[in-house]
Amino acid sequence: MSMTIKKATWPIAKDLAFDINNKANAAIEKYGRENVINAALGTLADDSGKIIALDSVYDRLSQMDRSIIASYAPIEGEDGFREAVLDSLFENHRPKAFMTAISTPGGTGAIRSGVFTYADEGDPVLSHDYYWGPYKKICDEFGRDFITYNFFTDDYKFDIEAYKAAMAKALENKDRLVSIINSPGNNPTGYSLSDDEWDEVIKACQDLAIAGKKITLIVDVAYIEYAGSGKQKEFFEKFTGLDPNFFVIVAYSMSKSHTAYGLRSGAAIGISSKKEIIDEFENSLAHSARCNWSNGVHAPQLILKDLENDKDGYKKELENLRLMLEKRAEIFVREAKAKKLAMIPYFGGFFTFIPTDKAFEIAENLEKENIFTIPQAKGIRVAICATNEKDIIKLVDRLSYFMANL
Amino acid sequence: MSMTIKKATWPIAKDLAFDINNKANAAIEKYGRENVINAALGTLADDSGKIIALDSVYDRLSQMDRSIIASYAPIEGEDGFREAVLDSLFENHRPKAFMTAISTPGGTGAIRSGVFTYADEGDPVLSHDYYWGPYKKICDEFGRDFITYNFFTDDYKFDIEAYKAAMAKALENKDRLVSIINSPGNNPTGYSLSDDEWDEVIKACQDLAIAGKKITLIVDVAYIEYAGSGKQKEFFEKFTGLDPNFFVIVAYSMSKSHTAYGLRSGAAIGISSKKEIIDEFENSLAHSARCNWSNGVHAPQLILKDLENDKDGYKKELENLRLMLEKRAEIFVREAKAKKLAMIPYFGGFFTFIPTDKAFEIAENLEKENIFTIPQAKGIRVAICATNEKDIIKLVDRLSYFMANL
Repeated sequence: MSMTIKKATWPIAKDLAFDINNKANAAIEKYGRENVINAALGTLADDSGKIIALDSVYDRLSQMDRSIIASYAPIEGEDGFREAVLDSLFENHRPKAFMTAISTPGGTGAIRSGVFTYADEGDPVLSHDYYWGPYKKICDEFGRDFITYNFFTDDYKFDIEAYKAAMAKALENKDRLVSIINSPGNNPTGYSLSDDEWDEVIKACQDLAIAGKKITLIVDVAYIEYAGSGKQKEFFEKFTGLDPNFFVIVAYSMSKSHTAYGLRSGAAIGISSKKEIIDEFENSLAHSARCNWSNGVHAPQLILKDLENDKDGYKKELENLRLMLEKRAEIFVREAKAKKLAMIPYFGGFFTFIPTDKAFEIAENLEKENIFTIPQAKGIRVAICATNEKDIIKLVDRLSYFMANL
Repeated sequence: MSMTIKKATWPIAKDLAFDINNKANAAIEKYGRENVINAALGTLADDSGKIIALDSVYDRLSQMDRSIIASYAPIEGEDGFREAVLDSLFENHRPKAFMTAISTPGGTGAIRSGVFTYADEGDPVLSHDYYWGPYKKICDEFGRDFITYNFFTDDYKFDIEAYKAAMAKALENKDRLVSIINSPGNNPTGYSLSDDEWDEVIKACQDLAIAGKKITLIVDVAYIEYAGSGKQKEFFEKFTGLDPNFFVIVAYSMSKSHTAYGLRSGAAIGISSKKEIIDEFENSLAHSARCNWSNGVHAPQLILKDLENDKDGYKKELENLRLMLEKRAEIFVREAKAKKLAMIPYFGGFFTFIPTDKAFEIAENLEKENIFTIPQAKGIRVAICATNEKDIIKLVDRLSYFMANL
């Protein structure tokens, strides 16, 4: 007995991060916030565990005319929002290229439309083998062929040889691929590609494009504002002079950068050396927008636009958040070192990552002590964004205990 | 030169309603609001042309804790929201059936996931031949076969024979179909199916389901709160005792009922006589949610939940809006009658409709006089939701002039 079509029929599978977060919240309800460590969901929380909402963002929401909040945004997004996305994302590191931004619900919508529009059914979509789960799920949803390659060399550098080999193999019988790279401040690992590594990635894509393959690179930068103090945007300039067969989409999200997770606002930015490639990107993504969510949430678009004209307050708040996160990461690294716990190098973002093949077993034991983390095939993800310094010390202690004793 | 896959490549096609609305706004900017009639976009405006935002809704937004607004909603939606959707939608006319509601961005997301999940590529998706444009666009996006049938008999009743014939023909070589009906307060016509007409629709679907065909009926009720004073919900009770092959999805939207267009909140409600059909609906729609928009906007979900516990103020505001709209419709009907302008019977909703095969020519001439309407293949749609009584009189006068003189 089934009504759904086969391709849209899925087993019951609660989303892991949201499901564990629900368990953590139930534990908080039962035992009190001070007795639970919720290092599961990627949301910035202050030291008392309360989700942080930036004044510069939410003051503007409070002051906005209600009939404006109520009104529809244009399908592609407010013009001023679309410009503000480019300005706030690239700052002084714009690539010299044709570009446009189309509003999407968070980064998810941008990745979804990139995969849907630039890979056909059965076409390869590549990502590193530590990855945000929805990448694979999106490929399942649309029948795209999700393929992973080895992310890191033994000394935790980006494994460019594995990347090149995976692209070559994927293109043996195909003439196009989509590649998703989540950097800087990778989720789940905290890793950021260096400028040299970006050079190698771009050269590998360029070579294939020049040879006639259609290469679309989606760069998921959800955590970019928490991954260094300015330098982390320099790699954008490298997307200059791309072969016309090499197209770049940057998946932009206001969720983390503006503490606006629940307002669902983001954008897909297309970057190409050809104007016509940008025009068709705009048409296709507007078509997808109209057919999936119609248009974006209006208020956050107007907030971003307004912030671009008066950003000092926002910049100061953001810098404080970045420093809070940096401090927590330092403590995590220090404690892990003291406990001889191996971790993937942290450069930024909301998470640290402990590689282990016993992740699910360890996470289960941690849960019994009301410590909630996200176990994955290759290790344990710890949301330092949501965990205060005292709790980080305790968490690393218990994590290292179970690592040694299971 | 193209990077997009063929199936996701679309000609430049501005969305008509949003595009004409942009033109209207430009005219208002240039000539002043009092010299422009914007009867294009489906948004309730007061007599001065300002978009209405209900206090009962937006007071709650103002009072909401910022860290709650900032936080993520669960993928399927807050439990309390999902219950509130069923309560506020059905009131005391619940079908006796298994049901669940999944959060979607407006009604669009619900229709999108209904079409995506219950019709495969090439499968028929039927609608009446006056229809909301995105129905066809969604089918184009996903390669579903959009088919229309004659909506009205000569005396403007629902053409049940045309509906049955279209379903029979569509199923000649197919074993499933999706049917979309937008009632009550149809967009663009203002038509509502009578209870007898619903009986006939349901019997036609039941007969096919009993014969082994899989029939999914999507009922788009975006305008239901503006289509009568209570009676318009009685037909929901008829979705009781459906054959297991007959599945109903109600596309629910907060856009119109809560003046929350720009907050993008709605739901898909599945109705079946079998629990397992509802379970697979929930799994599939949650999968689609995670892969397309991740989760819904949090604040409106919590507002709906809160309103269900304390709805008097909201109900009163809504009733005033309904009466405002009813009054405008009465004047439109009266003026049209005086000018001998034929129109489709109006039962509710945001629009009235004048059938003509010269719609585009007439609309163009109206635009020259700063009167903005939406021309369609079968006639002209007038957004009485956005037009005050004085402007309606002028609009009907000029419309009838061009009807007679072009």
